[in-house]
Amino acid sequence: MLGHLYEKQDCSAARTLELVGERWSLLILRDAMFRGHTRFSEFARTLEAAPNILTKRLNGFVEAGLMQLDPDGRYLLTRKGLELKPVIVALTVWGDKWVGPGPVVYVDRDGKPVTQQLALEGGDVAIDVAEVGVRRRGAGD
Amino acid sequence: MLGHLYEKQDCSAARTLELVGERWSLLILRDAMFRGHTRFSEFARTLEAAPNILTKRLNGFVEAGLMQLDPDGRYLLTRKGLELKPVIVALTVWGDKWVGPGPVVYVDRDGKPVTQQLALEGGDVAIDVAEVGVRRRGAGD
Repeated sequence: MLGHLYEKQDCSAARTLELVGERWSLLILRDAMFRGHTRFSEFARTLEAAPNILTKRLNGFVEAGLMQLDPDGRYLLTRKGLELKPVIVALTVWGDKWVGPGPVVYVDRDGKPVTQQLALEGGDVAIDVAEVGVRRRGAGD
Repeated sequence: MLGHLYEKQDCSAARTLELVGERWSLLILRDAMFRGHTRFSEFARTLEAAPNILTKRLNGFVEAGLMQLDPDGRYLLTRKGLELKPVIVALTVWGDKWVGPGPVVYVDRDGKPVTQQLALEGGDVAIDVAEVGVRRRGAGD
């Protein structure tokens, strides 16, 4: 948790950042969403965060309802956590364009490339977050 | 700048967070995008960030090409900076749903509500970031 750093900011973006705006938070969620990580040891292997930070973040996510800790000690994304996927995709799309193409492409269940976009409300082209995964970027991407 | 905290993360989302992942960064961009702030004094009025942090962030944005500093001392978003708008919108959409409706609604130039979504690449319903602004949430939203 950010300890109400943005408490005076009457803004939904700020409220979201209270929950996921600390260092490593969004990358932990990325690994849960797209690498299928559920165990502390898996997150520790792919992230260079200090163990105490990682523990703090994971427990914070459970407390905030973004993850559930099951009896086997696995951290499982809830629907609430899963719905942060567009934030990760938006960060990636920007980085792919303005920093350089990254190693993965987002795809739907049929392997078709998925992106994120701003669009009028009420359109029916949106893909549910649960349908979106990743594959390695290939020569043709 | 995050000082290459995520240096070993071969990932576009991590690279983007190197530029905008520090505290206050995304809220500074929000105020530039949606409140039209350009001057240090304007950002300082709406954000509780310490002045030295604010200066560091704004200069970092200029260095990273997200903003340009004009001769009148105004920090102006570049196209590169403006294209981070979907990140702010995605954070807001999530907060509106999972924390509580915030004070603003995103709209296009005609005032129609805009949202952020995942969709197949190549669709033609996307709205350009430059077309998206905000209005106060009303009773009907």
